[in-house]
Amino acid sequence: PVPVDPKVKRASDILKYGIPDRGPTVRYYQNHVLSYDQARRTPLWVAEHINSQHIQGPANRKHSKFRPDPSVDPMFTAHNGDYWKSGWSRGHMAPAGDNKFDQEAMNDTFLLSNIVPQNLQNNAGFWNRFEMYCRDLTSRFEDVYVVSGPLYLPTQEDEQKVVKYPVIGESEVAVPTHLYKVVVAERFNTPTSIGAFIVPNQPIDFGPKLTDFQVPIEDLEKSSGLKFYPQLDRSKAKNLCEMDSCKLITQKEFELWIIGRKLQSARTQERVEKVWKELEEKKLKPDQYLVDLYAKKKVELAAKQSEE
Amino acid sequence: PVPVDPKVKRASDILKYGIPDRGPTVRYYQNHVLSYDQARRTPLWVAEHINSQHIQGPANRKHSKFRPDPSVDPMFTAHNGDYWKSGWSRGHMAPAGDNKFDQEAMNDTFLLSNIVPQNLQNNAGFWNRFEMYCRDLTSRFEDVYVVSGPLYLPTQEDEQKVVKYPVIGESEVAVPTHLYKVVVAERFNTPTSIGAFIVPNQPIDFGPKLTDFQVPIEDLEKSSGLKFYPQLDRSKAKNLCEMDSCKLITQKEFELWIIGRKLQSARTQERVEKVWKELEEKKLKPDQYLVDLYAKKKVELAAKQSEE
Ligand SMILES: [Mg+2]
Ligand SMILES: [Mg+2]
Repeated sequence: PVPVDPKVKRASDILKYGIPDRGPTVRYYQNHVLSYDQARRTPLWVAEHINSQHIQGPANRKHSKFRPDPSVDPMFTAHNGDYWKSGWSRGHMAPAGDNKFDQEAMNDTFLLSNIVPQNLQNNAGFWNRFEMYCRDLTSRFEDVYVVSGPLYLPTQEDEQKVVKYPVIGESEVAVPTHLYKVVVAERFNTPTSIGAFIVPNQPIDFGPKLTDFQVPIEDLEKSSGLKFYPQLDRSKAKNLCEMDSCKLITQKEFELWIIGRKLQSARTQERVEKVWKELEEKKLKPDQYLVDLYAKKKVELAAKQSEE
Repeated sequence: PVPVDPKVKRASDILKYGIPDRGPTVRYYQNHVLSYDQARRTPLWVAEHINSQHIQGPANRKHSKFRPDPSVDPMFTAHNGDYWKSGWSRGHMAPAGDNKFDQEAMNDTFLLSNIVPQNLQNNAGFWNRFEMYCRDLTSRFEDVYVVSGPLYLPTQEDEQKVVKYPVIGESEVAVPTHLYKVVVAERFNTPTSIGAFIVPNQPIDFGPKLTDFQVPIEDLEKSSGLKFYPQLDRSKAKNLCEMDSCKLITQKEFELWIIGRKLQSARTQERVEKVWKELEEKKLKPDQYLVDLYAKKKVELAAKQSEE
């Protein structure tokens, strides 16, 4: 017979009625994997693998809806109502935009198990640009791995360090003080690169650089209580921000991108013209993509109008 | 071949470098089992099984030392130095006194994985009496199961609910706002009893009753993110405080108990007499246990003195 550790034997008495259950360690979705924090009603971490095939395709966020994750026990799930009038937006950890290849995969990212209360400007601005940077890495690396999640960091308050964060709604969803990403990028026959970043859950304008938020991965691990990529040999890994630029898109590029999004979703010719005028007002020179999109939209909407 | 869930198949790419690791779900000790919160450097829950055999015996806390749990990754462990001058005491979750049967089992409860920063008066007072009550249950029930742990509960602050707690020392050990216990008691041929309690991590005097802190177990589960005793059929369980008294020992009984502890640890005859005088000062009538202990101590110390 296999010898049994007496501590484990004793545990079978102690745990006669089962182990206190914090839910499954890992939850699986179409194109992301996460661990859920049942006490805080947010993910603990969300893992992705991004490559050039996943970030393009027909999926559109207008077909996706935020909703409670049916796999999470009702006692521990967040609800859309928790976010309403809370002052906090619903921030994706696995971004919708990493799942353009498949509508179902994109829909999965709208499950509230993948969402944290995020400052709206941060969500639409700096964090959005950070997500774009991760996708853009696939033009220079074959495989990009990202783990994202919320943090609850202390601040000095008088003589002591204090952790302080609001909880929102009936479900008391925790609002993180910071968000993190650990990014691993690799291509054939070159060393793997890794970078860890902690971003405050606050408005961040175009002044700060992504590298301003880079931290030693061990610092993030100590704060989060997690060890990331345990099967990666870090002694051979390079600093992502030395192997690649870690440069986010500029204000100009970002504004052109926003105008592109507005053009794409425009449903009337007046709206198309109004968006196009923003370029002049902001003294922005459209790139070829925008010029083509503008022309295409005008033809489309003219045809639609003549049908009516 | 066994069909593979495509989500799980995709996960093997996403998790190429391993799952973010929050440490083992369950850690085993001589006479308790716990789950450790690597981010907060405290246990998440600690489970015990108490019966009359475990709570008596030769083990003595004077032979035990608080120390970092060697099984916890150094990055995530608490240290004794974190507690020094912090204003918080080291509070056992599995109490030392539940392990009188075995010195090694008692020593295990002094590992900092079993400890949370606890208000000293709470630790020595109300919580101590609560632990005594759990042990006393073994005189009326054969088996008592207890799960104990820390909580971080929000309070209303202006318009919003806020979670706020200090962290102490270099390791930033989280100071819980509350502590919980879920107690299951059973004896042959009677229904199992269960009670859940949430106690503020503050001084509590002899006014409040234990029942003042009883809560529906579902409330505790929602706050903690844990489901307790998942293999217990709750529909058949009774309310512990209806099946038993849930009465803590009185102030008088508690003061006698403290004098007993002082007598036991007295090392000189002067000390013995000084402690004995406290009875008069406090107008307490010693019970037979104390009278016998007093006599025994005097003989012991007289013999010791004549040896010197
Ligand atoms: Mg977002
Ligand atoms: Mg104690």
